Amino acid sequence: MGTAHYKVILAYHGEAFAGFQRQRDERTVQGEFEAGLRKLGWQGGSIRGAGRTDAGVNARAQVVSFKLNWAHSTDDLCHALNYYLPRAMGVQSVVEVPEDFHPRFDAKARHYRYQLFCHPVRDPLREVFAWRVWPKVALDRMNEAAGDLVGLHDFTAFGSPTTPGGVTVREVFSATWREKSLEYQFDIQANAFLYHMVRRITLVLVKIGQGEAPVSLVKESLQSGDLELTGLAPAEGLFLQEVIY
Amino acid sequence: MGTAHYKVILAYHGEAFAGFQRQRDERTVQGEFEAGLRKLGWQGGSIRGAGRTDAGVNARAQVVSFKLNWAHSTDDLCHALNYYLPRAMGVQSVVEVPEDFHPRFDAKARHYRYQLFCHPVRDPLREVFAWRVWPKVALDRMNEAAGDLVGLHDFTAFGSPTTPGGVTVREVFSATWREKSLEYQFDIQANAFLYHMVRRITLVLVKIGQGEAPVSLVKESLQSGDLELTGLAPAEGLFLQEVIY
Repeated sequence: MGTAHYKVILAYHGEAFAGFQRQRDERTVQGEFEAGLRKLGWQGGSIRGAGRTDAGVNARAQVVSFKLNWAHSTDDLCHALNYYLPRAMGVQSVVEVPEDFHPRFDAKARHYRYQLFCHPVRDPLREVFAWRVWPKVALDRMNEAAGDLVGLHDFTAFGSPTTPGGVTVREVFSATWREKSLEYQFDIQANAFLYHMVRRITLVLVKIGQGEAPVSLVKESLQSGDLELTGLAPAEGLFLQEVIY
Repeated sequence: MGTAHYKVILAYHGEAFAGFQRQRDERTVQGEFEAGLRKLGWQGGSIRGAGRTDAGVNARAQVVSFKLNWAHSTDDLCHALNYYLPRAMGVQSVVEVPEDFHPRFDAKARHYRYQLFCHPVRDPLREVFAWRVWPKVALDRMNEAAGDLVGLHDFTAFGSPTTPGGVTVREVFSATWREKSLEYQFDIQANAFLYHMVRRITLVLVKIGQGEAPVSLVKESLQSGDLELTGLAPAEGLFLQEVIY
């Protein structure tokens, strides 16, 4: 009874949204979620999110929290929210958390996954959730370069701070590519990520895998703080997989 | 050199189209494909297709054919077409075929696949290409009923003829459900299908699997030519997998 603090695991298909963060005149994850929540009597100013995914980026388990006066069970809250949320977004679970829980500041790590496949010809079904690249990438080269990401580094070459002038040091805990019949999956965990960091890293590793850049490029860029390559791997291949507390 | 007859395997994400068949003022598979083909100098009236998939239905391997004056290789034709086709559609391969080849009349069988999963909570990522149902279905009940579909039957209870007053007898060669951790895949092959037939059958089998209809419903409906249930399984779970010649 009374107001409690709820933590929600939220999945979404990024294609449907102009990113996580609320914007005037744009359909965003935050904006749509708050609109759904208001249907349940919520009158708060802002939900809290674990991370601001970019336009087009998918989430299997974004974490948001809010305070709500809700007289029923958390399962009921899950179903009630899903009833009001758009089809491209779905609450996976709801739990009650202590009042001081913060989805962003309390997170110990974030896990992102990038999906790509190698094929000379377009595939409109697989490309909904993956990036098609050709020529073929070399898994060993990508994994060798990915290993250089692990540890505490200044990642300024690979992304922008989330606040202007902010710290660009992050700690990558693991970064590994796996392959199954020319479908590649890149899993990377870090305490936090810079803006565009995973998609920039993915692009660089793919270029290394295709032999268009040397394996040493990651290490050199971390040292110099500069990256020659521009561009980003496309958003549709990227998934926020898990936020770890 | 000169005009040749080409057979194209075409994949598409059904969500982007108002079905296969060309319509004025609607974005259709046929309409977009013909528009792309015209960029390569095609001046024919109509391409031929193996089957008219419904609005929202996906294809991994629709088959279309057309005559074209093309001076380069079939691989070049594949890439040139993909360059002009919308992102939700992609040519998978091109081969030259005899002048009298007809993708629809020469087809010996069609293979459709329906994907569903059982879960109490929405999943916006999986639901792009699958139907979520709950409560859980019983695989053995669905397969027992699916077995009754196999053979030469009048399928009037399960669909409409493709031309008004047309024949409603079809031969189903196989119809089988498989399950992997609550994801279900229904594969059905027949010489041809009636309009809405696979989605209607899928709905009936799911109701049987959930215990809302008796296993005998398929057999009874085939005999009576009548089906009590109305409705269709949603289009996004359905894939035209292969056309067999």
